[in-house]
Amino acid sequence: MKILWTCGDPNGIGIEILLKAASNFEKSPHHFIALGAFEAIDFYNRRLNLHRNLVRIEGLSALPQTKTGAAIFVIDAGGDVSPQAGMLRADAGRAAMQAVELAANLCLTKQADAVVTAPLNKEAINLAGYNFQGHTDFLAHLCGVKTEMMILADEFSLLRVALATVHTPLEKVAEKVRGVNLSQMIERLAESLQQDFGIAEPRIAVLGLNPHASDGGVIGHEENEILTPAIARLQEKFSDAFSVAGPFAADGFFGMKTYKNYDAVLAMYHDQGLIAFKMLAFETGVNFTAGLPIVRTSPDHGTAFDIAGKGTASETSFVEATRLAVKIASARMNGINRIGKIQAEET
Amino acid sequence: MKILWTCGDPNGIGIEILLKAASNFEKSPHHFIALGAFEAIDFYNRRLNLHRNLVRIEGLSALPQTKTGAAIFVIDAGGDVSPQAGMLRADAGRAAMQAVELAANLCLTKQADAVVTAPLNKEAINLAGYNFQGHTDFLAHLCGVKTEMMILADEFSLLRVALATVHTPLEKVAEKVRGVNLSQMIERLAESLQQDFGIAEPRIAVLGLNPHASDGGVIGHEENEILTPAIARLQEKFSDAFSVAGPFAADGFFGMKTYKNYDAVLAMYHDQGLIAFKMLAFETGVNFTAGLPIVRTSPDHGTAFDIAGKGTASETSFVEATRLAVKIASARMNGINRIGKIQAEET
Repeated sequence: MKILWTCGDPNGIGIEILLKAASNFEKSPHHFIALGAFEAIDFYNRRLNLHRNLVRIEGLSALPQTKTGAAIFVIDAGGDVSPQAGMLRADAGRAAMQAVELAANLCLTKQADAVVTAPLNKEAINLAGYNFQGHTDFLAHLCGVKTEMMILADEFSLLRVALATVHTPLEKVAEKVRGVNLSQMIERLAESLQQDFGIAEPRIAVLGLNPHASDGGVIGHEENEILTPAIARLQEKFSDAFSVAGPFAADGFFGMKTYKNYDAVLAMYHDQGLIAFKMLAFETGVNFTAGLPIVRTSPDHGTAFDIAGKGTASETSFVEATRLAVKIASARMNGINRIGKIQAEET
Repeated sequence: MKILWTCGDPNGIGIEILLKAASNFEKSPHHFIALGAFEAIDFYNRRLNLHRNLVRIEGLSALPQTKTGAAIFVIDAGGDVSPQAGMLRADAGRAAMQAVELAANLCLTKQADAVVTAPLNKEAINLAGYNFQGHTDFLAHLCGVKTEMMILADEFSLLRVALATVHTPLEKVAEKVRGVNLSQMIERLAESLQQDFGIAEPRIAVLGLNPHASDGGVIGHEENEILTPAIARLQEKFSDAFSVAGPFAADGFFGMKTYKNYDAVLAMYHDQGLIAFKMLAFETGVNFTAGLPIVRTSPDHGTAFDIAGKGTASETSFVEATRLAVKIASARMNGINRIGKIQAEET
């Protein structure tokens, strides 16, 4: 397989962690190709004394048939940029996005099998004229998809968390939960567990919105009015394909390690899912964008401008993101998707 | 010292865990006295083959001067009750509350030093005609206190969590956080850490309300408008007595174990504080009601009607609650409270 690495913002830690991570995959049968501004990659390779053997190629067709040695192949994605570690710059934002666009095209045209994206900076891409929040909505746009879903995955603890709402002010969470199509989210999550994680009969847990999952309606009403009915409908409709349980009181669910009985958890809001996820998977957790036609993973951290160019950034999450990308691309090739089949039969 | 144990609902697991816990304190220099319906205690002692030596006494003055042997002294708190394990009954609710009332009186009159309360059932006490939510508001009422505060404490991980809002529907949390006096809460927490936990210069962390603690105001505004100014004011006012920091993004705070640098954490709502607390302290975590003139702790679980009378309940949390009660009663005797002094000077 061919796995693409995009460099992210060249003023952040992206190139550093990519170059460090590469040594973990020298013996892998797969090809890993860095996409970014060649000059910037070369700059950090020398500045941080990483001594990686960079080989610039014009396109994927230039890759050798058999993988040999520890060379890192680089395709220059354009973007005339002079790296300035830690600085917020439009040229850096532009270079980051050009690499992502190239990666998406190579995956959409089946020339490559997956992309792992190093972090970019939202302000920098906005300065460069891109009107996006970051990778996820940009990739959804490039793929023509409206309903992508982020899954936080830790393949060590096997905790996988999806969020019904993400960067929503707490005050608006309940209203937004009432507005989203939770059934569709759960179906999408189940489908991803099946086709992307290769789990034949996924088991999904849904957390309650309120403390104690509302204690039977005493503390809030969304459980009785929305969550419980949605779960019951899905249990019936998809009884042969996946199981879904809940709504669970979130504190007891994580405290009693109930998550170990499930393949994924749908949390209602950011901190409800992320507190537990980061406690269990701080270094090894990664992000996967479900619902795209291409396979995309990313590390669980940002550009870290404060330590950029210093050589102290940890590549662990980028390494795990790469491993998960390989795993998901393989699972998609094996291709089981009975959930999609049930959905298709209905329409 | 004299530590009181109230039996809780006689149809729950309270008496079982109390009798099991007692063997942990046989060699303690302190006296531990069970308050409840004697017949009910005797019933579980025989039914579960616990073979504890129950000694009924009329009052604390009847305790022997020197503690000898493994007897459990019991003061019958009244409440004509025939135990029916697992049943919701008014007579059980009444018996539970009578023991609490007796305990409060014995502590308020300085005849006893602390009370550890086994769980009661809210519906059962309501059936018995008590118009309270549970122990906490009943004790506050008995003590004539309006502003008690629950602290969840785990003396193993040294994680202590207080909540700005507790059993509030998620939709109302932001509004309620804006309405409460957070400064007063933080002062009360600091005061309790000093006088109850014996920490000379308490360090308090405050969590943000919104994801990423609002990312500088991008995701909600309560951090900029309420939390940050309140923290700044307290830092200045109490710079000699305690330190307070935040608002922290909750997921990173727990994920990076930042809590290890603080003596207590003020979380904004139930699941934000309780998910982390239960993950770190599921068996050993206990509750302490700060702000009362008496010392009261309790285990971190309910009546567990489903396993009542079966002999399978774990006494671990009740044992830890008892240990913490001893610790807090000792600290209060040593009596440092510079924070109260600063407050008093001001008024």
